Amino acid sequence: MMQRAAPAFTWQVRVYYEDTDSGGMVYHANYLKFMERTRSEWLRSLGFEQDVLFRSGVLFAVRAMAIDFLRPAYFNQLLRVSAQVSQRGHASLTFVQEVRPAQAEQLLCVARVRIACLNPTTMRPRRIPSGILAELT
Amino acid sequence: MMQRAAPAFTWQVRVYYEDTDSGGMVYHANYLKFMERTRSEWLRSLGFEQDVLFRSGVLFAVRAMAIDFLRPAYFNQLLRVSAQVSQRGHASLTFVQEVRPAQAEQLLCVARVRIACLNPTTMRPRRIPSGILAELT
Amino acid sequence: MMQRAAPAFTWQVRVYYEDTDSGGMVYHANYLKFMERTRSEWLRSLGFEQDVLFRSGVLFAVRAMAIDFLRPAYFNQLLRVSAQVSQRGHASLTFVQEVRPAQAEQLLCVARVRIACLNPTTMRPRRIPSGILAELT
Amino acid sequence: MMQRAAPAFTWQVRVYYEDTDSGGMVYHANYLKFMERTRSEWLRSLGFEQDVLFRSGVLFAVRAMAIDFLRPAYFNQLLRVSAQVSQRGHASLTFVQEVRPAQAEQLLCVARVRIACLNPTTMRPRRIPSGILAELT
Repeated sequence: MMQRAAPAFTWQVRVYYEDTDSGGMVYHANYLKFMERTRSEWLRSLGFEQDVLFRSGVLFAVRAMAIDFLRPAYFNQLLRVSAQVSQRGHASLTFVQEVRPAQAEQLLCVARVRIACLNPTTMRPRRIPSGILAELT
Repeated sequence: MMQRAAPAFTWQVRVYYEDTDSGGMVYHANYLKFMERTRSEWLRSLGFEQDVLFRSGVLFAVRAMAIDFLRPAYFNQLLRVSAQVSQRGHASLTFVQEVRPAQAEQLLCVARVRIACLNPTTMRPRRIPSGILAELT
Repeated sequence: MMQRAAPAFTWQVRVYYEDTDSGGMVYHANYLKFMERTRSEWLRSLGFEQDVLFRSGVLFAVRAMAIDFLRPAYFNQLLRVSAQVSQRGHASLTFVQEVRPAQAEQLLCVARVRIACLNPTTMRPRRIPSGILAELT
Repeated sequence: MMQRAAPAFTWQVRVYYEDTDSGGMVYHANYLKFMERTRSEWLRSLGFEQDVLFRSGVLFAVRAMAIDFLRPAYFNQLLRVSAQVSQRGHASLTFVQEVRPAQAEQLLCVARVRIACLNPTTMRPRRIPSGILAELT
């Protein structure tokens, strides 16, 4: 029996001056912000607000990334950022995230991002809440 | 009898790509970061570490600024940022801060910055610790 | 005869981790980013794209701001940022901009922002294109 | 015959409020800024200024990174960031970069960073200037 992957969640991001550098393009570290915005909106789309999660003892933190900067993005461009869970553990999630122009297929930036679920008081790993895991099956 | 103002504290800041935008100059909001770094180093030069102050119930927060962006600063430039207390209250300090090239007198940016002393738990104004005030006379 | 001011343009901004600091609130310099995003979207709503303007010799740059930080904004909050032209010159515009929670009237931050219209090659003031001025009457 | 690797270049970075987020730690994307500052200072220590390089047709751009965020860094901490060239090509350099507290050996963050040498006009790869390569042997 075939298993279909969930379609990737996508979020649009506009490039403002704040995102660029004097090389004329998006500053490389800012793609990490775009990717985190997209993961936040993905979680919200499933019904989970991170401030509520935090108060209930759940913090998601980036543990590792492998990222390729393939082509530049420019000032005022509208981008389309995807987030798709590629691996699930008890206390971690791995995402594949891609950045493209909103209206084109050209890949600008791609990353594999590993997120840990932490207890914000102890900063130690904890199980991902079952309500969130249930959304990932 | 003449009273001499304390000489302004100065701190050097290097402009990296992260500080610029695609207009080729320092992004305007980043001057606020340069100014805060300088106030932090001024406080450190008097012997006060803000993480220690925070744990003892003292948080300094920016309440208001009037800022003029006079001339652009560029990528890779070394800047000289000043901080001088121009007014002292029981629970607030006002600074005049200026940004210049490290080796020139040309004024690039100038601001008047009002800082409130807050209790970080209640976020309400509190008296500036007397040890800090004593350094300002 | 009474003259009614144009209603303010508003834009929604979500607070992500990137916008906050370890004090638990939006970092003060980041309100300047929110305000610039809103001015950019205001200009777009009138039909003007800043990358196109730039290539035709028009750059808008912040010259001066007076800003009051009245109440903190928090992680994950949805904000409503306004932009309203309060003064028009031949080569400059002054905006009043306010930040509020998306669903409440409480004023968090307010600024008066003076923008100059520059020739990006010479960085000298130039007349605001008549097409833009026509939208402001 | 033994070959000794060049000792790693190190640069100190202070954590200011601008670098932290409401989780109370350094925001993950900001380590990329710390690492770029360190590479910039490494290049300067060899006698090369990036604005001069840019005007002579040389731009270094980040192409890929693999980064592990191992332990948090906190507000007001002084960090020690290293940069060491681990691989040299004709048109690219790979660095290993590590972040530690200034006065301790605990590894907070480690990355492998691939930098391409580009012609800033065409944005295509070009040979690294021989003067820079000569410093790396």
